[in-house]
Amino acid sequence: MAGEDRVLSGGAKYIDFQTDPSRYRHWKLAVDGDVATLTMDVDENGGLFEGYQLKLNSYDLGVDIELADAVQRLRFEHPEVKVVVMRSGKNRVFCAGANIRMLAGSTHAHKVNFCKFTNETRNGLEDSSENSGQKFICVVNGTAAGGGYELALATDHIIMADDGSAAVALPEVPLLAVLPGTGGLTRVVDKRKVRRDHADYFCTIEEGIKGKRAVQWRLVDEIAPNSKLETKVAERAKALAAASPRNGAGKGVALTPLNRKIDGDALRYDFVTVDIDRAARIATISIKAPETAPPADIDGMIAQGAAFWPLQVARELDDAILHLRINELETAMLVFKSHGDRAQVLAYDDFLENNKAHWLVNEIRQYWKRVLKRVDVTSRTLVTLVEPGSCFAGTLAELVFAADRSYMLVGQKQGDNRPPPAIALSAMNFGPYPMSHGLTRLESRFQADPSQIDEAKAKVGEALDAEAAEELGLITFALDDIDWDDEVRVFFEERTSFSPDGLTGMEANLRFVGPETMESKIFSRLTAWQNWIFQRPNAVGEEGALRRYGTGVKAHYDMTRV
Amino acid sequence: MAGEDRVLSGGAKYIDFQTDPSRYRHWKLAVDGDVATLTMDVDENGGLFEGYQLKLNSYDLGVDIELADAVQRLRFEHPEVKVVVMRSGKNRVFCAGANIRMLAGSTHAHKVNFCKFTNETRNGLEDSSENSGQKFICVVNGTAAGGGYELALATDHIIMADDGSAAVALPEVPLLAVLPGTGGLTRVVDKRKVRRDHADYFCTIEEGIKGKRAVQWRLVDEIAPNSKLETKVAERAKALAAASPRNGAGKGVALTPLNRKIDGDALRYDFVTVDIDRAARIATISIKAPETAPPADIDGMIAQGAAFWPLQVARELDDAILHLRINELETAMLVFKSHGDRAQVLAYDDFLENNKAHWLVNEIRQYWKRVLKRVDVTSRTLVTLVEPGSCFAGTLAELVFAADRSYMLVGQKQGDNRPPPAIALSAMNFGPYPMSHGLTRLESRFQADPSQIDEAKAKVGEALDAEAAEELGLITFALDDIDWDDEVRVFFEERTSFSPDGLTGMEANLRFVGPETMESKIFSRLTAWQNWIFQRPNAVGEEGALRRYGTGVKAHYDMTRV
Repeated sequence: MAGEDRVLSGGAKYIDFQTDPSRYRHWKLAVDGDVATLTMDVDENGGLFEGYQLKLNSYDLGVDIELADAVQRLRFEHPEVKVVVMRSGKNRVFCAGANIRMLAGSTHAHKVNFCKFTNETRNGLEDSSENSGQKFICVVNGTAAGGGYELALATDHIIMADDGSAAVALPEVPLLAVLPGTGGLTRVVDKRKVRRDHADYFCTIEEGIKGKRAVQWRLVDEIAPNSKLETKVAERAKALAAASPRNGAGKGVALTPLNRKIDGDALRYDFVTVDIDRAARIATISIKAPETAPPADIDGMIAQGAAFWPLQVARELDDAILHLRINELETAMLVFKSHGDRAQVLAYDDFLENNKAHWLVNEIRQYWKRVLKRVDVTSRTLVTLVEPGSCFAGTLAELVFAADRSYMLVGQKQGDNRPPPAIALSAMNFGPYPMSHGLTRLESRFQADPSQIDEAKAKVGEALDAEAAEELGLITFALDDIDWDDEVRVFFEERTSFSPDGLTGMEANLRFVGPETMESKIFSRLTAWQNWIFQRPNAVGEEGALRRYGTGVKAHYDMTRV
Repeated sequence: MAGEDRVLSGGAKYIDFQTDPSRYRHWKLAVDGDVATLTMDVDENGGLFEGYQLKLNSYDLGVDIELADAVQRLRFEHPEVKVVVMRSGKNRVFCAGANIRMLAGSTHAHKVNFCKFTNETRNGLEDSSENSGQKFICVVNGTAAGGGYELALATDHIIMADDGSAAVALPEVPLLAVLPGTGGLTRVVDKRKVRRDHADYFCTIEEGIKGKRAVQWRLVDEIAPNSKLETKVAERAKALAAASPRNGAGKGVALTPLNRKIDGDALRYDFVTVDIDRAARIATISIKAPETAPPADIDGMIAQGAAFWPLQVARELDDAILHLRINELETAMLVFKSHGDRAQVLAYDDFLENNKAHWLVNEIRQYWKRVLKRVDVTSRTLVTLVEPGSCFAGTLAELVFAADRSYMLVGQKQGDNRPPPAIALSAMNFGPYPMSHGLTRLESRFQADPSQIDEAKAKVGEALDAEAAEELGLITFALDDIDWDDEVRVFFEERTSFSPDGLTGMEANLRFVGPETMESKIFSRLTAWQNWIFQRPNAVGEEGALRRYGTGVKAHYDMTRV
């Protein structure tokens, strides 16, 4: 396997997904009325790891972390923004894609994690467009190659300079022996509906396509001579803003820094804590219910801002998942627990349901959807333990249904006075949080008999003990106190003894029952093939294309077709 | 990469996909009225390669070639058969799945090709059930493990002995660190709709599940004590036969041996020839039009039997594709050509369309569908050259639309008196040959503007020259004589210089635009993940599970989760 242990820049001890505009090194975010401009101007010397320079607006994970942050802030902090113009701060180059030296020197695990996060970020652009009415225009002022064009593909409208030089390209296959794997191949044919033989041609030429043919083949939406480019962009922005359903009157909510403490084997936030048992290779994620009732009204929610429980917990959980994914590679299993007042969790869900027309409530619901999707594509065994004192209700109950398996205690534990655990359902379990393939977790669960969804719906709000939850099919195993410790221990020991790769492949198949969407195709068909290629000597071997790129020495390929 | 060069048994020089019941070593086919019995009784010493024994009804590619042949013959030679009972000839074991020693010692390419063919065979069982009314009952008389259970999953109805011992199992992940990758994971949740957490449990226990729980969890359809097993099977067979729409009155058509000559760089059949240019790594497949008009009626077709042009060509093309896939691994590109009278090809298509209610015509149409699907999932660049004298019409025109790219000559070639080439469409291009993801090739092609399908339909039967074909979007490039040789040569040279793996991944993504079906999910999500795992040291390395299985030494895993 190609890959050496990269050293993080600046003495960092872990990769941090938290940032804010004051710390951006690669992006500039400017807001002017209902139009924001997001300018990519990558600092060559701002790589996340040592050992490469981010030339020509090429990117690494650090660049993408800033982009994800900016897109997130635009949704929460800028309800007035209806259009985002994404452009380059460099002359005659939009973006050269993922940095090749970075890729060549990365471990397999980092390559896979890097691509997963960048995919989530690009899906996030489309999610913002579809569900928040923030439309994205991409201004291709020069070369948009590889991941650069893939970024453009995630926007709603691509305007390219018609100057005989600006071009879009997916040169990965001919140049690097890897795929345009961050959605590129899928979006070209599935989103932009480029004819598959045209796509075949386009994806095998290094120089890309410019001018009229790029429009004729649907690779970009329009072209403009440089003299008219800015006018076109402004016109398009105006039109998209006029058509946007975004109704974000009033002030946004500042995404203030998370209160987070990372301390060896533990991560502590206000409502989420993570405890890592390194010997067992298990991370336990505990989520605390809100301690107070939801605010009386929208104004009360806005006054709480980022401290509003559903928003704060989503941010904490999101950060925890990302941290574990990339910084704790040997963790085999995420075990979800919860504690606190189930009724309060349901009360917040009611608030989210009763006020869903409000832009901020919508954003919070959409964000929970994305966090849960992030959980779904996390390559760790997901287990939820429903024990006394837990509060898996509504939104939090999605962690029961997202799990590969759930265990729930029947009755009480000896020496523990707390009542038997119960789970509860809310409106949140029946629509707002679809998985990437378009089904809710309960729809996925009840493929065999959809009437079970109605049976569950009839119990919304009720406390369901282990027998009731088992009867409804909501949990995997109901165990009493006598069996609990042994069964759970044996399961953990067995599971963590299996090949991590086998589990990754198995879970990626079993979790996504039924249909596929463009988004889920990107994580299945495209990503799985790219991961295969990321293991193949032709790409990552000593004589492979990623290693040899730029050396002047041609890659050497085993010509066996597999 | 794991894998050594296996030696074919019995001094064979290549893997042969042609067989017939008189040569079967592993299966017995018996027909009794409308019920056939297909008994798996694998000859331990009948492995395709030297170096392993096929114990406990485990299988290798050779076993599956016989199964595919039997299923094919049941469709063509036995119109009277409405139910096929699949069972084991061994005591207390149904099938132990793919032979592990075989897998452990296979090259990566062979593993992938083996799985692809076995997937096609299992899809073929389901295709027969759905489109020929031959329903499959699987009798699980003992252990059905791994590929053994995957075979059962491809049938319509699984009856398991309830004897405290018979069980179904998918122990690949815990035992071998690979996936149940021959449809297993997908069919468990997508076809049998086993709840995903139950599936998670089932796929991580070595011993499998027996008795009532197997029924409750939907893993099998029914169980029966041994004393009642045969009665139940007979009852179920009778019921399925009564419900089958198969209306195959009269005699079947014998699939007589192909007239094939394999001679170094050439394969010659009556209507299909393959010429392999090893230096260029290109195989050219030429298909000859029928020389005579179609028979006047159904009786005439039946009298021709296997010599009826559409059937014979389908068989020849199918064999050629399989041969190239597995025996010519360094061939980068398949170039399709054709020659003969376009009008005759269309006349045969008319025959197939006008008589589609007849069982044999239906079988031939279904077979062409499967052959073309086989082409679609072949990991070689597919190119179709439409030159003077060619006859890409109707069914054969599907090879233009299946290609990654097509080139068509504008006008004539210097020194060649033949008229400019033309392609033509028929009813065959608008429905009977869907790809595995459910769309026809023209539907896939015209995702951006489905009205182009209607425009094409309006031209059915017309000779379309290069300009007309280009205008309709039916070909990739129209080139005149001046450019033809250079453009095609440069394309061939460039294409064959790229990494074979990059091309495989790219083509697998671009060919399947839009939706996915269970069948296409098996080739994308499941197979792509399995191929990744087939590259991972945890499975195939010296200390990996496939190598260490049965040695008494535990596999050693890198515990990084990717």
